[in-house]
Amino acid sequence: MSSRRLEVEVLSIGDELLIGQTVNTNAAWMGQALEAEGWHVGRCVTIPDEKKVMLEALREAESRAELVLITGGLGPTRDDITKHVLCDHFNTQLVRHEAIEQRIVSWFERRGREILQVNKDQAMLPESCVPLDNPKGTASGMWFDRPGGATVAMPGVPYEMEHIMLHGVLPRMRDQLKTAGRAPLREHRSILTMGTGESQLASRIEDLELDWIKRGIKLAYLPSPGSVRIRLTAEAEAVADLSSAHQLLVERLTEFVVSETGETVEEALAELWKNQGWTLAVAESCTGGGLGATLVSRPGASAFFLGGVQSYSNTAKVDLLGVPAAMIQRHGAVSHPVACAMAEGARAQLNADFGIGITGIAGPDGGSEEKPVGTVFIACSGPSGTQCESHRFGRDRTRNLGMTIRAACRLALEEGRNNLTVSNSGAKGVADSL
Amino acid sequence: MSSRRLEVEVLSIGDELLIGQTVNTNAAWMGQALEAEGWHVGRCVTIPDEKKVMLEALREAESRAELVLITGGLGPTRDDITKHVLCDHFNTQLVRHEAIEQRIVSWFERRGREILQVNKDQAMLPESCVPLDNPKGTASGMWFDRPGGATVAMPGVPYEMEHIMLHGVLPRMRDQLKTAGRAPLREHRSILTMGTGESQLASRIEDLELDWIKRGIKLAYLPSPGSVRIRLTAEAEAVADLSSAHQLLVERLTEFVVSETGETVEEALAELWKNQGWTLAVAESCTGGGLGATLVSRPGASAFFLGGVQSYSNTAKVDLLGVPAAMIQRHGAVSHPVACAMAEGARAQLNADFGIGITGIAGPDGGSEEKPVGTVFIACSGPSGTQCESHRFGRDRTRNLGMTIRAACRLALEEGRNNLTVSNSGAKGVADSL
Repeated sequence: MSSRRLEVEVLSIGDELLIGQTVNTNAAWMGQALEAEGWHVGRCVTIPDEKKVMLEALREAESRAELVLITGGLGPTRDDITKHVLCDHFNTQLVRHEAIEQRIVSWFERRGREILQVNKDQAMLPESCVPLDNPKGTASGMWFDRPGGATVAMPGVPYEMEHIMLHGVLPRMRDQLKTAGRAPLREHRSILTMGTGESQLASRIEDLELDWIKRGIKLAYLPSPGSVRIRLTAEAEAVADLSSAHQLLVERLTEFVVSETGETVEEALAELWKNQGWTLAVAESCTGGGLGATLVSRPGASAFFLGGVQSYSNTAKVDLLGVPAAMIQRHGAVSHPVACAMAEGARAQLNADFGIGITGIAGPDGGSEEKPVGTVFIACSGPSGTQCESHRFGRDRTRNLGMTIRAACRLALEEGRNNLTVSNSGAKGVADSL
Repeated sequence: MSSRRLEVEVLSIGDELLIGQTVNTNAAWMGQALEAEGWHVGRCVTIPDEKKVMLEALREAESRAELVLITGGLGPTRDDITKHVLCDHFNTQLVRHEAIEQRIVSWFERRGREILQVNKDQAMLPESCVPLDNPKGTASGMWFDRPGGATVAMPGVPYEMEHIMLHGVLPRMRDQLKTAGRAPLREHRSILTMGTGESQLASRIEDLELDWIKRGIKLAYLPSPGSVRIRLTAEAEAVADLSSAHQLLVERLTEFVVSETGETVEEALAELWKNQGWTLAVAESCTGGGLGATLVSRPGASAFFLGGVQSYSNTAKVDLLGVPAAMIQRHGAVSHPVACAMAEGARAQLNADFGIGITGIAGPDGGSEEKPVGTVFIACSGPSGTQCESHRFGRDRTRNLGMTIRAACRLALEEGRNNLTVSNSGAKGVADSL
């Protein structure tokens, strides 16, 4: 292990992860938090709640990484064995912590819930560990110093783990860095593109990439349905060149760049709308509310999002959005004119600056020769008129819904940016006229 | 490795997974698909796009598992090195497959996209592998037979991986099982509970659990915000006792059981509504459309879901749902009467059998002394009246939104089941009256 690289290994414990009943979002959250602090996650290993496997994986991880972070298996029930395995591994025993037991008791009292002995036993912790406070639940975190580094165990419930990471683990890690005189030596920059594939993007910047490789800047393409995120990573001295590389990347790919900071298209949309003081309303058919849910998933949405209509049925389109029944009859509910009428209806009904209308066939059934599954019409209505685009996504429902939501955000973002240009160039723009 | 256990190890390759830019949903999907076939996923390992680490992890995995499934690093760009590492590992070389190149060329032609040499080079595959067809993209899967088992590489794009798993990998695995005369020897049953914590559940069934342990049935608690899934796992002979154990579990915990099959609360809701021919409308404030999006995320939602109103702003509540402005003025937008009026408004506006109304303070800001962040009112209006319940969730926005959506489904499910009882007992129920 290089002395300059701060190596972390994540051990996720739980049969539910292996059989896919739970998606391992903890590992991703920890990866983000650690990278942001300049630590390098070298490996994530998911193993079952089995003593032998846990002991083996622990030994392997500790031989590779300075810091081993374990999640899972700290609950009060019989299938939770992490604490006992750690006692074995560190050759220590469980001892009762009075203060922690008191906290657990009052945790139950505050919630008016009966406390059981197994709950109190959550205050039994390995003698050689430093307990890490968990105000969100009953399972404490445990910090074990060991030759060559430290090993930490946390509960697998995401918001409990996150609290312990933020308030217990990361501050301790920072202290250790400071003591050792070691600073973070790795930085990332990302951009988000939409509208073309990764091989086209790569061919556009081939010369840049070759130059960056020589200078220690690594390039990665992260394709998602409908978008490609491009990430630049610089280590050590190359960090100094990262900003100019990022600038070159943005310039070269300008017509595909949705976000220069790698933020998602919905984040870029929210930022523009908030900055301009614009409002937005939606009319969602096939997505059933998913666009609205995406917009409100981050705090502060009420500054621009007024709401909308989930017009899943035709009646809802007619009664709540004023889409003419004859138009639906003539063109079909999934059509260019209906998408426009929905966008305009949402804008009018909610008295918003912009309205988005979405209608499509998400699948797996409901397609026709002319309009196969995956056909989606998205319209955006604003002060300078209504734009509509059609898409033919694939046959996968979940994917189609996600791509539709992102495409709708991209169209609105484009319309917003166009409006801005009109406005800035002196023509009557939305920011003045409303 | 036991000769009865069919051991699989999953190797996920990609820096984006380690730094948390992408959540590893592939591992969960594969875990589910493999378990359903009776295979046992013993370990999932996530590693960076680094040759040395990949070779080491491959050797380790092959020493432990009969089948090693690799995802990621098969794209056309320079950061994708899996194919080259596999050539090294299996001591083979890349050869061009004419038929695959032809397929890639027509893949681009169909989409009207320009093809580059790097795209054509996706037809260069290790000589010793069996290519697995990928009609969803340009990266073929690769099946390598090896002493003691097989190793398979697939692209990391989820829908491409899923297609190759379903059509290339799983059928081959089934053939191998058949040839070897080995049948799946592990079964699961799950139930979903809401309304109490895991320690309370565990104390209720302590005697059952002790008995099951003796008989080889394993019990696991999988807590999520607002619910606990309980999973029974039987291996080998114990499989015969699994049904009766499951039955006992449901009986003992009856008042907390939302689903006897472990399906989610929204799946249980959809099933009941479809079976009864009922319709549903929603009025969502803080969730912004998330309940509707959850309901339409599975196919067939149009059989019962009519749509609704995303009444994020007060104007939307008044104008689109008929909530009296004076009521909002007097009680606040987040209140018992407003939730009821929203549910009734949705039911009336969309002419639905049931309406759900949601209003709350998702956080992190906007709380008060009387109504802190996490306060949510959920109402369900149906043929026998309107029920409203209030919740005080926590301070985490994402968690609050998820818990609200699930709590709303649970309340509606309860109301639906009550209606069913009324209806079945001879009183005028919804199924007759509408």
